[in-house]
Amino acid sequence: MTAVVAIIMGSQSDWETMRHAAETLAALGITSENRIVSAHRTPERLFTFARGAKAEGFKVIIAGAGGAAHLPGMAASLTELPVLGVPVESRALAGVDSLYSMVQMPAGVPVGTLAIGKAGAINAALLAASVLALNDPSLAGRLAAWRKRQTDAVAERPEETA
Amino acid sequence: MTAVVAIIMGSQSDWETMRHAAETLAALGITSENRIVSAHRTPERLFTFARGAKAEGFKVIIAGAGGAAHLPGMAASLTELPVLGVPVESRALAGVDSLYSMVQMPAGVPVGTLAIGKAGAINAALLAASVLALNDPSLAGRLAAWRKRQTDAVAERPEETA
Amino acid sequence: MTAVVAIIMGSQSDWETMRHAAETLAALGITSENRIVSAHRTPERLFTFARGAKAEGFKVIIAGAGGAAHLPGMAASLTELPVLGVPVESRALAGVDSLYSMVQMPAGVPVGTLAIGKAGAINAALLAASVLALNDPSLAGRLAAWRKRQTDAVAERPEETA
Amino acid sequence: MTAVVAIIMGSQSDWETMRHAAETLAALGITSENRIVSAHRTPERLFTFARGAKAEGFKVIIAGAGGAAHLPGMAASLTELPVLGVPVESRALAGVDSLYSMVQMPAGVPVGTLAIGKAGAINAALLAASVLALNDPSLAGRLAAWRKRQTDAVAERPEETA
Amino acid sequence: MTAVVAIIMGSQSDWETMRHAAETLAALGITSENRIVSAHRTPERLFTFARGAKAEGFKVIIAGAGGAAHLPGMAASLTELPVLGVPVESRALAGVDSLYSMVQMPAGVPVGTLAIGKAGAINAALLAASVLALNDPSLAGRLAAWRKRQTDAVAERPEETA
Amino acid sequence: MTAVVAIIMGSQSDWETMRHAAETLAALGITSENRIVSAHRTPERLFTFARGAKAEGFKVIIAGAGGAAHLPGMAASLTELPVLGVPVESRALAGVDSLYSMVQMPAGVPVGTLAIGKAGAINAALLAASVLALNDPSLAGRLAAWRKRQTDAVAERPEETA
Amino acid sequence: MTAVVAIIMGSQSDWETMRHAAETLAALGITSENRIVSAHRTPERLFTFARGAKAEGFKVIIAGAGGAAHLPGMAASLTELPVLGVPVESRALAGVDSLYSMVQMPAGVPVGTLAIGKAGAINAALLAASVLALNDPSLAGRLAAWRKRQTDAVAERPEETA
Amino acid sequence: MTAVVAIIMGSQSDWETMRHAAETLAALGITSENRIVSAHRTPERLFTFARGAKAEGFKVIIAGAGGAAHLPGMAASLTELPVLGVPVESRALAGVDSLYSMVQMPAGVPVGTLAIGKAGAINAALLAASVLALNDPSLAGRLAAWRKRQTDAVAERPEETA
Repeated sequence: MTAVVAIIMGSQSDWETMRHAAETLAALGITSENRIVSAHRTPERLFTFARGAKAEGFKVIIAGAGGAAHLPGMAASLTELPVLGVPVESRALAGVDSLYSMVQMPAGVPVGTLAIGKAGAINAALLAASVLALNDPSLAGRLAAWRKRQTDAVAERPEETA
Repeated sequence: MTAVVAIIMGSQSDWETMRHAAETLAALGITSENRIVSAHRTPERLFTFARGAKAEGFKVIIAGAGGAAHLPGMAASLTELPVLGVPVESRALAGVDSLYSMVQMPAGVPVGTLAIGKAGAINAALLAASVLALNDPSLAGRLAAWRKRQTDAVAERPEETA
Repeated sequence: MTAVVAIIMGSQSDWETMRHAAETLAALGITSENRIVSAHRTPERLFTFARGAKAEGFKVIIAGAGGAAHLPGMAASLTELPVLGVPVESRALAGVDSLYSMVQMPAGVPVGTLAIGKAGAINAALLAASVLALNDPSLAGRLAAWRKRQTDAVAERPEETA
Repeated sequence: MTAVVAIIMGSQSDWETMRHAAETLAALGITSENRIVSAHRTPERLFTFARGAKAEGFKVIIAGAGGAAHLPGMAASLTELPVLGVPVESRALAGVDSLYSMVQMPAGVPVGTLAIGKAGAINAALLAASVLALNDPSLAGRLAAWRKRQTDAVAERPEETA
Repeated sequence: MTAVVAIIMGSQSDWETMRHAAETLAALGITSENRIVSAHRTPERLFTFARGAKAEGFKVIIAGAGGAAHLPGMAASLTELPVLGVPVESRALAGVDSLYSMVQMPAGVPVGTLAIGKAGAINAALLAASVLALNDPSLAGRLAAWRKRQTDAVAERPEETA
Repeated sequence: MTAVVAIIMGSQSDWETMRHAAETLAALGITSENRIVSAHRTPERLFTFARGAKAEGFKVIIAGAGGAAHLPGMAASLTELPVLGVPVESRALAGVDSLYSMVQMPAGVPVGTLAIGKAGAINAALLAASVLALNDPSLAGRLAAWRKRQTDAVAERPEETA
Repeated sequence: MTAVVAIIMGSQSDWETMRHAAETLAALGITSENRIVSAHRTPERLFTFARGAKAEGFKVIIAGAGGAAHLPGMAASLTELPVLGVPVESRALAGVDSLYSMVQMPAGVPVGTLAIGKAGAINAALLAASVLALNDPSLAGRLAAWRKRQTDAVAERPEETA
Repeated sequence: MTAVVAIIMGSQSDWETMRHAAETLAALGITSENRIVSAHRTPERLFTFARGAKAEGFKVIIAGAGGAAHLPGMAASLTELPVLGVPVESRALAGVDSLYSMVQMPAGVPVGTLAIGKAGAINAALLAASVLALNDPSLAGRLAAWRKRQTDAVAERPEETA
């Protein structure tokens, strides 16, 4: 089965965060293609990837990066596919730098930005799924079921912890 | 023609920002339905709207709000449609409160967040268009043309201003 | 004895913080009803709870949440009971996101917000107690005694620690 | 008619913000006593006021201040009445200093803090009203009516502005 | 020998930071009187202390506190002695709340604020010493010697660490 | 009469803020010597001034600067006189940069930092006066009178403004 | 005369800031080539420019951008020439977003970042000049003279302004 | 071989960060001279060093410091050599204080600022190398090879970690 979602990230260290996107997609029956593409260390790879992403058959790109996080924005400048950004938590500035570098894109080139860190990675996958589900009733059903299970899993009362 | 994008906003004062989303959609040939839905002052309207949005035929929801901006997140909790959020610039905190209230959604309920203010409104429209274009080749063409015009419009050199 | 204070929180993980509210109320002889109500994962439960809170006999609602913390504000939009908010410390942004999402409510729907984390949970309980004490002289006496003990417990001089 | 709500503020310049609290209370049929009490310039007045507030017949204190905003917290340390704080927008730091000085009270002495500026002043009045309404069915009715008017006043659609 | 510097702090937990002030004063031959005075839990003690500080023979007050740190500012409102403030590092906001609550005093009541945490405690002692040295040539000599030793202790080159 | 307080500032544009220090000192009968000393543009002047300040007869140095505000800290590194810092409001960062550059001095070299802008300038003068008053009973009297007038000037109630 | 410094900027609106770099270079006898290169709207132009900058004869690149300011970092990823970045003041976040997007580059691809706004533009020019002066004694002389004039222009005392 | 790059730092504790600059330079075949120069504790050493740096044969100065980080800016005020600044991560404010103290230099005296912490130290070395490479073809070759190795080292796909 061909992957319709590409998950790209700036470095191996971002995988700890971004694998939550891949796992969430997998739980919804969506295969993702996971690649390291560094805007700064491999700009040519970024160009080639982003320019060719549509032709490769991708429909949504999820990009995670930290610090001066240029990956999602530059990908978005090179493709018309929807690009979703996940700010990876940075050491000194706790991801505020990643967030601002991603969300404050100028008019004309959008990046749909999710929360800093793991929650953002999971939510990027869910948002990608909701986009794909617009034309895939089966996926829409799986997403609805996933959401229902999530709702059902919320306990009525907090449990004492030791 | 039926609107496939709903633009909702917390109050009349957000329209100054959000009309840029409507105008950008219109420029791409997409009709939007623009409504005031206040998470705080009209919670029932929010529930009714978000629960029924899919049945109304909407495919993407763009939600703009300022301050403790709960509108996009609550809409996202009530629908499986993709929800895009636009943080409206607030008075005291310049939209940082709006941004944090929107982008820091917990795992499970995504809001794809754009930039604070007008740029974010325009980009929410463009991101919605890129989502819709996945299954609308004609729109894909119009979007590509829009992007090309944008690229062509960038002058080579800065002009002196008086 | 019927609970007059409801403590609600977005998830089990908030209980580590919010149990300090319950314990402080208990120390003042006030029974609380502690429930998990997630604005995002169980929006219907939130509606049902908040709309019915007055009829259930609650007089004050204490709501704790983290990140894009919509729970207190949405509860406040659905009830005329006083709602007190406790921003739970978040991972990346240390609770600033929780604080802004809670305190920056628009005119018309108030959330009385306390400090981030454990101190805020304790203080939400004390503020709830001071509200209830307005019409409960016995509670007023217990609260005054609690405050006096707190004052008396402050040592004159710092002690050397090993 | 005796005032049951005291509105205190650090200086004349805070009145521009705090009069919105007084006006909102008045709209709900609640008389407020409005006084200038400066924690820093008139500490004795603060002590006298806060120590005697209960005996004067006040039930709720609303305190507004800016910058190193000590007024609400010091009032709260001197009375067991509920104290609500309104961070007044400051010049250089836009009220973030006022907000932090108010909301970050240590465990033991609560200040229920509202939004920065005018919205916070209005909401302090509404929260005070909801507290007083717990034992005043007539006020509860007026508050419910106020809230309903607010809901009804939200238009369905944004209006074009010139 | 009578103490001419009072070191006051909001709670026992601040001593870990403030003892560096006491130790630095001691190294300069200045005896300090170290007391716990909580603005919020012991407001009367604060009033009594600050109103009587000059009569007790103190010449400089060093006050350390965290969070909504009102101690230095309230002390300064109650005495004409110089008051120096040390923002103690807080849990969630890392001392930014303590700093803003201290340094942003309104015109009329000054607090000379030092760095957040241990460095600030040491520097409060040094600044107090420089104030006292204005009329104490012997202390001026000890302070100059201390400063010279500090300068001489700076190595020429960094040493490798294991 | 010889000036015992030196007011130094980084540039002419800081005078708009720092003249409030000079005026406040003058109101207390203290003559100040006001000079432009730029840490960055005139480092030699800074060295000469700070090294010679004690010999010139100064007892307290008030230094105002904006942005990367090195003036107070560098003056403090070159003299054992007490140095008080006034963060001048900067354009982009509203004086947060000035504040951090001043208050976060390392252990060993203190700068007593006041509020950002005009309030800080006035308070630097008052703190300098309180230092000088320790050995000048006449000044102590004038300072006490100034403070009393300030207290007396606080109106009981806010006045309506047009 | 061939330009050895390229000044690039994301849009015409950045010229208001960046022209100060060009004017400062001109005052030092250095010709600059000023171009609009948008990382987001003209990514191909950026690639072509940065890949060819060395061959075009440029020795230093000064890049100004605002918001999610990717231009300097992407240029730096595509050339080994020194790249200096000027964060242009943004509307909502006052340039903090621009600054973080620029300065927080990952290890491996440096951007020497200057102050937000006009001061940063002037300083980028001066830093470029100091780089070029390393091998240009005549320019070194002009730069030294410029610095001396700057020092000499600092008045001794502030002047009263009307 | 004579060192052409001076690495200076405020204290031994900064070496943990700054040694990454020295190691990166060494990897490029550039010898650095590493010294402790404290702006605050050894201002005379700073003056002597910076005034004499050009005569000592240095071409670039890399300065690392934390907190109120005055070292790079003061060095820049005393030499016309290019000065690069590395904000060392501080305890309470995570290096934001260091960053603002460095990057917000006033017009006239530039500091090319790199990222907070280790990444900034490595990048200061790389930027210094790119400056030196302008007139050293052999170094230019080594730098290009280093950059190519960096690009080649980026894996295609993230690896699972245990």
